[in-house]
Amino acid sequence: MTALADDLRRLIPAERVVTDPGVVSAYARDQALWAPYGTAAALVRAGSAEDVRALVEFCAARGVPIVPRGAGTGLSGGANALDGCVLLSLERMDRIVEIDPAERLAVVQPGVVNDDLRAACAGHGLWYPPDPASSPWSTIGGNVATDAGGVCCVKYGVTRDYVLAVEAVVGRGEAVRLGRRTAKGVVGYDLCGLMVGSEGTLGVITEITVRLRGARPPERTVVGGFDGLRAAGEAVSAVTAAGIVPSALELIDRYCLEAVDRWKNMGLSADAEVLLLGRTDTPGETGEAEAEAMAACFKDAGATWSARSTDQAEADALFAARRLAYPALERLGQVLTEDVCVPRALVPEMLARIQRAARAHDTHIANIAHAGDGNLHPLIITRPGDGAARDRAHRAFDQIIDDALALGGTVTGEHGVGLLKRRGLHAELDPAVVALHHAVKNALDPAGIFNPGKVFGDPAA
Amino acid sequence: MTALADDLRRLIPAERVVTDPGVVSAYARDQALWAPYGTAAALVRAGSAEDVRALVEFCAARGVPIVPRGAGTGLSGGANALDGCVLLSLERMDRIVEIDPAERLAVVQPGVVNDDLRAACAGHGLWYPPDPASSPWSTIGGNVATDAGGVCCVKYGVTRDYVLAVEAVVGRGEAVRLGRRTAKGVVGYDLCGLMVGSEGTLGVITEITVRLRGARPPERTVVGGFDGLRAAGEAVSAVTAAGIVPSALELIDRYCLEAVDRWKNMGLSADAEVLLLGRTDTPGETGEAEAEAMAACFKDAGATWSARSTDQAEADALFAARRLAYPALERLGQVLTEDVCVPRALVPEMLARIQRAARAHDTHIANIAHAGDGNLHPLIITRPGDGAARDRAHRAFDQIIDDALALGGTVTGEHGVGLLKRRGLHAELDPAVVALHHAVKNALDPAGIFNPGKVFGDPAA
Repeated sequence: MTALADDLRRLIPAERVVTDPGVVSAYARDQALWAPYGTAAALVRAGSAEDVRALVEFCAARGVPIVPRGAGTGLSGGANALDGCVLLSLERMDRIVEIDPAERLAVVQPGVVNDDLRAACAGHGLWYPPDPASSPWSTIGGNVATDAGGVCCVKYGVTRDYVLAVEAVVGRGEAVRLGRRTAKGVVGYDLCGLMVGSEGTLGVITEITVRLRGARPPERTVVGGFDGLRAAGEAVSAVTAAGIVPSALELIDRYCLEAVDRWKNMGLSADAEVLLLGRTDTPGETGEAEAEAMAACFKDAGATWSARSTDQAEADALFAARRLAYPALERLGQVLTEDVCVPRALVPEMLARIQRAARAHDTHIANIAHAGDGNLHPLIITRPGDGAARDRAHRAFDQIIDDALALGGTVTGEHGVGLLKRRGLHAELDPAVVALHHAVKNALDPAGIFNPGKVFGDPAA
Repeated sequence: MTALADDLRRLIPAERVVTDPGVVSAYARDQALWAPYGTAAALVRAGSAEDVRALVEFCAARGVPIVPRGAGTGLSGGANALDGCVLLSLERMDRIVEIDPAERLAVVQPGVVNDDLRAACAGHGLWYPPDPASSPWSTIGGNVATDAGGVCCVKYGVTRDYVLAVEAVVGRGEAVRLGRRTAKGVVGYDLCGLMVGSEGTLGVITEITVRLRGARPPERTVVGGFDGLRAAGEAVSAVTAAGIVPSALELIDRYCLEAVDRWKNMGLSADAEVLLLGRTDTPGETGEAEAEAMAACFKDAGATWSARSTDQAEADALFAARRLAYPALERLGQVLTEDVCVPRALVPEMLARIQRAARAHDTHIANIAHAGDGNLHPLIITRPGDGAARDRAHRAFDQIIDDALALGGTVTGEHGVGLLKRRGLHAELDPAVVALHHAVKNALDPAGIFNPGKVFGDPAA
């Protein structure tokens, strides 16, 4: 252990190589409840791409696993330490290298925080859309590694849709540039796209070029209250069926809303079991018509009330509550987060199945959802220290995954596979497709050092 | 040769295995002028995914190369025959399997013609955007293999942005499904995305699931006339710098316009050396303001005239001319098509360099361009049988590639590498990145049978 760190300090500025167990252990896991994690040999806080290159070369020569990480806000255990690994934190590589308004792109180091990039772009009249709920903390590098989604994805797509190019250290320490700066380009394989969502298993990203959009138009907000999940789900399907593409269509239940309010005293009240928060940013009369049509869909699906929000502060508070639901619930107990995504027309059925899973396994499941995408986040809540409840939560978690697959869905819409969804991955993908994953992994990571065992590794290992 | 065909006829319905040299040779090349092509052993017109699976298994066992092809409208030689290969035509697998309005997706066989899919979607109030100029003839399978672009890509993205899933036959005959039907999903590597644009080198696509959009809003058209390419290029940069995202921004020069008019008698007249055709489909007053702003950009950049087209038929005729430019020019001589893409702000400089290349190499270069994307298609025109002119055309072709790279551009924006851009690929990509291509290719095509030598093969081979 010490020998390894000593060797590293000859390659990388000594202060960036950390072995203090208290510090290293604080970096040993992300926010995925109950995902296993091991004991790292060292933590490297990279300050440059050259640090990363030197580390990869070193680890490849010795077969030492590298677990790259951003802010550690992941919910699948993708950044969790492996025994004897080097934890590679990219959080100090946090420079916005360039914002180019003419080409509508930004170049950033991986440790730039999502909201910081958005704010910097806004200063140029530009917009970086992908907005995971973790945006105040999570980094662009982590977002790229997991292909993070968010609230506006229903209209504007996910992280993948914005990554033009990456610089990465791959293989045995080769620094490569993948992708392009131009609006279009088809030279060779889309290896840049292959890196996106690969959860650190194919190399370490040291710089990212993202596409930007023009400043976001103002949004109109429509809120609907529903007696239950199923009716809210019907409203979601109705919005889709009506051909409306909202700029947000979020679901939050009373439990989550109240948990946020108890924490933040935002003066929120649900007046309903489930709220749908719809938005449109289409300008002019067309947007006005969309908002009205969305409200009509809510009512027709059985909303107990539906209102166009005229108070921007109130509307923003509701969306802020949606974003804060996960940390608010964490204050109240242990939260196991699901992330299934189903065809939009089957959202009502999937929400009904989630309720059945809660009853069948005697566990409480709160719900938030990027409902317009069919991306549901049932939150399974247990009291700390209750082993039996924990077992029931695990069974509900597995049940929900199986239900999503039965409906033609996927086990992870945006959080990634990490450790927690490995069983789900093997249930979703054909063995021949898993074999392709192994072939790609072996081809691009010949030393087997990049986050080994994650994503498509043996879930029993 | 005959033995191979006889063996194939035991696996695949006999009438689908063609050895008639006249027929086979008609399938031996795409529309890339001067790209080399060999003599195929047989042509297989697949009728089903099972035909493809049986063929791949057979060829993998014997090391026989397979060259898949759609309609053969490619412009880089990607579908050209290799000596002793089996040409695999997918054009008879032309069924639209499903259009799902609720999920906004379509499932098609690879041989469906691009315009046919668009028309079928329109019947459901939906829209499949990618619109290469070859859309009346080219197939979705070919579009996916090359990641085809088109006119509306400046606002709506390229084929890649619409492919949700593919079924493909890979490796030694494994039929796999890659991707998903849900709006979001991040399970495992984006192997579906890796197949897009891989030009038949990683397997054969047998079914494609594409994302759709709602029916397209009506467009406003702005036409500007310019004295020369450079001024038109300045107008393009000005539109981008103004933050306008047009739904089309095309360039066509007088030479192309007159060539189309001589062919089709459309009554077009340029009244200028270069036309810019801009469109916006933003609804309402915002769209009106965008059209006016685009017209102002044209004027400020030195347009000799600029007009909002009030005559929809006239506007459509101009765009039709843009689409027909390539075949119209082919009637007049031999046309070597370029496909470089540069940063949008450098469009004026690149257009100036194209003119310099024409003068330096004493060759005529006409121009069409997806100007709003920085994707330029200089068309190098020579008289058939003039060997010296052909040499000069080649030198101009290489010069333009080198200029595009010098400006931070790419050697192919949307046509693919095929055979013609292999030198360009090696000039654009670092050897370490080419090594990654070989690693992926070897991993996913262990028998080395899928379109070998294309894309990143040795350009001298």
